[in-house]
Amino acid sequence: MGDAPNNGKIDFEGCYQLLAGAVVGRLALIVDGHPEIFPVNFVLERRSIAFRTAFGTKLWESMKEVPAAFEIDGYDPATEEAWSVTARGGTSLIEDPDERSAVDALGLEPWQPGEKSHYVRLSPRVLTGRRFKVKAPDVWTTRLNDERRKSFE
Amino acid sequence: MGDAPNNGKIDFEGCYQLLAGAVVGRLALIVDGHPEIFPVNFVLERRSIAFRTAFGTKLWESMKEVPAAFEIDGYDPATEEAWSVTARGGTSLIEDPDERSAVDALGLEPWQPGEKSHYVRLSPRVLTGRRFKVKAPDVWTTRLNDERRKSFE
Repeated sequence: MGDAPNNGKIDFEGCYQLLAGAVVGRLALIVDGHPEIFPVNFVLERRSIAFRTAFGTKLWESMKEVPAAFEIDGYDPATEEAWSVTARGGTSLIEDPDERSAVDALGLEPWQPGEKSHYVRLSPRVLTGRRFKVKAPDVWTTRLNDERRKSFE
Repeated sequence: MGDAPNNGKIDFEGCYQLLAGAVVGRLALIVDGHPEIFPVNFVLERRSIAFRTAFGTKLWESMKEVPAAFEIDGYDPATEEAWSVTARGGTSLIEDPDERSAVDALGLEPWQPGEKSHYVRLSPRVLTGRRFKVKAPDVWTTRLNDERRKSFE
């Protein structure tokens, strides 16, 4: 991630606002020594990122805290700005039924259908965000947005 | 990632088609034993994922091949289907000037402004994709798309 001084840093509150407004993020974990990444639908609950997953069962069952990174991003054609927010920290199972209910009450909708047996929480220890003008906005507004909207196939 | 039998698998060609149409993906690496994730603008060049980055300089300079995962995803409101494609493999520096020119010629636009000194290539060893009906499409079409389009703030 570039650290050029002209990149607009998003402050802590701004990062949380963006997390509160997003639905899908990508979680990175280390599995058998190799990085893995997968999309998860999440909710922001009490300043932590909560999601359900059937993936990583062994990981979360074998470790109290699993190191992870989490990312959301977006692009605003009106201002021609792209942005991203990245959280790093430990993930752990949510085992308390009341805590699970609190997550459910926020309308968590799993990204994929099927059994999502585990509730997992990531409590960010590092939270950073950046926004910046895109150099070639026409590339973005056409290619990226087409991709987001076009019929699959 | 769930492996429920009702998830629609995207075949190899379908994955490459989606990669060819996308502009931004997220790269996951292991840095100092911790997963890291960051968005990169990329191009698909000869069946490999090519991008430029100022991040990870030490990684790519110290190792011939750096293990990575890469992900793109999208949502189509018309069919109410979400999809994701994930690639795993090794990343390495593109050092040959001709190979760099080939990447430039494809219109690679770095996600963030600033110096992007390294050209990196990920040659997928594992490439998987899934598409699936979203259970609560109204959540997606409103929240996700608002987020993608709304004015930043």
